Amino acid sequence: MRSAIGRALLFSIGAYQLAFSQTVSATQAEPLEGTPASTNAPGAQYPRINADRSVTFRVHAPEAKFVGFRIDSIYAAERNAAGDWTARTKPQVPGFHYYWLIVDSVRVNDPSSETFYGTGKQTSGIEIPEPGVDFYDVKKVPHGEVRERWYFSSTTQTQRRAFIYTPPGYDRSRVRYPVLYLQHGGGEDERGWVVQGHVAAIMDNLIAEKKAKPMLIVMERGYAVRPASATPPAASTGAPSVPDRFAGLAAFPDVVVNDLIPMIDSTYRTLTDREHRAMAGLSMGGMQTFQTTLNHLDKFAWIGGFSGAGGGFGVPGAVPLDVKTSYNGVLADSAAFNRKVKLVWLGLGTAEPQRMHDGIIAFHKALDVAGIRHTFYESPGTAHEWQTWRRSLREFAPLLFRGGVEKQTASRGAGRPRSGT
Amino acid sequence: MRSAIGRALLFSIGAYQLAFSQTVSATQAEPLEGTPASTNAPGAQYPRINADRSVTFRVHAPEAKFVGFRIDSIYAAERNAAGDWTARTKPQVPGFHYYWLIVDSVRVNDPSSETFYGTGKQTSGIEIPEPGVDFYDVKKVPHGEVRERWYFSSTTQTQRRAFIYTPPGYDRSRVRYPVLYLQHGGGEDERGWVVQGHVAAIMDNLIAEKKAKPMLIVMERGYAVRPASATPPAASTGAPSVPDRFAGLAAFPDVVVNDLIPMIDSTYRTLTDREHRAMAGLSMGGMQTFQTTLNHLDKFAWIGGFSGAGGGFGVPGAVPLDVKTSYNGVLADSAAFNRKVKLVWLGLGTAEPQRMHDGIIAFHKALDVAGIRHTFYESPGTAHEWQTWRRSLREFAPLLFRGGVEKQTASRGAGRPRSGT
Repeated sequence: MRSAIGRALLFSIGAYQLAFSQTVSATQAEPLEGTPASTNAPGAQYPRINADRSVTFRVHAPEAKFVGFRIDSIYAAERNAAGDWTARTKPQVPGFHYYWLIVDSVRVNDPSSETFYGTGKQTSGIEIPEPGVDFYDVKKVPHGEVRERWYFSSTTQTQRRAFIYTPPGYDRSRVRYPVLYLQHGGGEDERGWVVQGHVAAIMDNLIAEKKAKPMLIVMERGYAVRPASATPPAASTGAPSVPDRFAGLAAFPDVVVNDLIPMIDSTYRTLTDREHRAMAGLSMGGMQTFQTTLNHLDKFAWIGGFSGAGGGFGVPGAVPLDVKTSYNGVLADSAAFNRKVKLVWLGLGTAEPQRMHDGIIAFHKALDVAGIRHTFYESPGTAHEWQTWRRSLREFAPLLFRGGVEKQTASRGAGRPRSGT
Repeated sequence: MRSAIGRALLFSIGAYQLAFSQTVSATQAEPLEGTPASTNAPGAQYPRINADRSVTFRVHAPEAKFVGFRIDSIYAAERNAAGDWTARTKPQVPGFHYYWLIVDSVRVNDPSSETFYGTGKQTSGIEIPEPGVDFYDVKKVPHGEVRERWYFSSTTQTQRRAFIYTPPGYDRSRVRYPVLYLQHGGGEDERGWVVQGHVAAIMDNLIAEKKAKPMLIVMERGYAVRPASATPPAASTGAPSVPDRFAGLAAFPDVVVNDLIPMIDSTYRTLTDREHRAMAGLSMGGMQTFQTTLNHLDKFAWIGGFSGAGGGFGVPGAVPLDVKTSYNGVLADSAAFNRKVKLVWLGLGTAEPQRMHDGIIAFHKALDVAGIRHTFYESPGTAHEWQTWRRSLREFAPLLFRGGVEKQTASRGAGRPRSGT
């Protein structure tokens, strides 16, 4: 009997050993350069971040004919006699980057890395530290919570999931809080700001330093279709479903206004007037923010676009901005708009792809021409990536829910140094 | 300017299209059998679950020499002229299964699937529905929350993460709640019960049916080392770190008792006496539960092992159970133990691997011989997998925190049908 118990114990420990041994490299004689990335699977020695911020990737693939790693570009790996394929990249921009592995024509995740929902599916990611920068690290400060909550949407007739950041002390206080609705980008989902964005650490740190007011932050799924327009799954009918990209977003403003806000305001201790409600989003989420807020200024007084400009939804190119008519004409009377809206904030990275950069700059200038007061921020050296959006939140959140916000039309940030792509 | 905005819009929509198009199959003429798994990436048509609960996997890999899918065993895939590799499995047991893809000797995740932290890293998973069974589905009932919370552990001198399920109505009520500490298995982490286990749906549904009392459930990361015994990361010294499997768990009971419980009891409205505190865990987490609770009966009155027996930690085989001396001898006086402990609960699946099954049965019988009252449950037809543990929670949670629990020594469940493995 004792031995049977011993075997059970061995079995469990064996499972545990198995779990780790698969990610731990065999002992090697030569010194290894750099340090394992914080985003690696536990015990995984690769990818490694070198002193010059280049990355060394490695995977064991003795039978493969081709192995490559795709980060800022594709790096073909070289095979050694043991069947390990290794690639070393150019120095990488600090922050979080999606990447993937290519094995004999198949795009897959790197087994050595944690995965992150982006590019429409789970994807490997790597965190490149930025020297001296810790505003998105978990520190020894009072911590808020991120709460996962399911709720029923009458618009989509489905259960939907939201994540809600509540600030430190929420449970014990009796006060009501303002709310920021904060959206992810295309191909990401409601986990994006929580996992890749480090939203809780950023807010905990800002609040600990008294740089931002305590607030709730609500992060929702972003994709929403009404039952009538839903593309049914292919099921057994044999007709594969190819989602209509635009229908897939069409119901989202209604979800926010008719379902999400009422659920949040009836579930949490919120301030429910428009002066205490903000919305922001990145990329696709920025577009959704302008679509939602500008059509519902009775609900929102604070607006942010992080690498995402206004312009509306619809067939590409069919809905260019017209300040007289777009968004039901709310931009036409700039004096009235500027009285009503406490903050319009636009941010982007100086190294964004050219057409994205130009598009947002054009929106910025269009607002200037129209006399719409707004704050403009450029994140030095970062691209269409999470480091731009973490910095955007760090800049944007402190401006929210202030009585005496000084609205700016002048640009902030480090001019317009441009790096390619 | 308009066109620039149009381009920006196009860029964002392009990213969104890209996100989806990568997971959507091209239109095909032939009808497709079965339905896409609920665990697929959005839009992914494979894997598909067929009427007999077999699974059809597919991946596009035109350059690969070998493609296989590993679920209950390895299924070699067949290539068609278009470079798609397809494999069809035997009928699968209902519930959640980890699986993976093998491409030319490399074990990777299936790009068509969501991933789940198990086997020590992110791994593909597939949910096989069980006909007529919905106790772990998100339903239209009042929902609790799962809260992500970071806290500082004085034992490990690190920030650690816990997930806390709070029941429906927690925020509005003024009452205090009992607490269940619930642990994952080896190779999994604090996300296991939340994501794979569907803990919130199970509890929301049990509470809605008034089958379980409202309670908090705390899920922590079971790995814990003290700073002095921590294996440092390899860093640039060139010495790869190979974790000591047992040291990697050693500090966990101290984390629970000295750090986690005080944090929970000072942060949430809990009942803080031992009669309102339970602990349970699966597999490795079951071992940790016995290790923690039996050495701290002043803190716990309810104990559950899901496919995880008692037996203590240490070098394999070195600490067999001895009812006179193990756990500081708390099992030696069964009458005193039975007065003090409200519930000892053991569960397992009838299709668990033989040595695990035998080990738990042996622990069960050892407790019988020792006169330790306990409840014993066998999950019909399920293996060392999440369906066993979801059912275990469904059986275990309703027994907790009841004044008049009828303690049983008789076995429950469907006898002992054994299927191989």
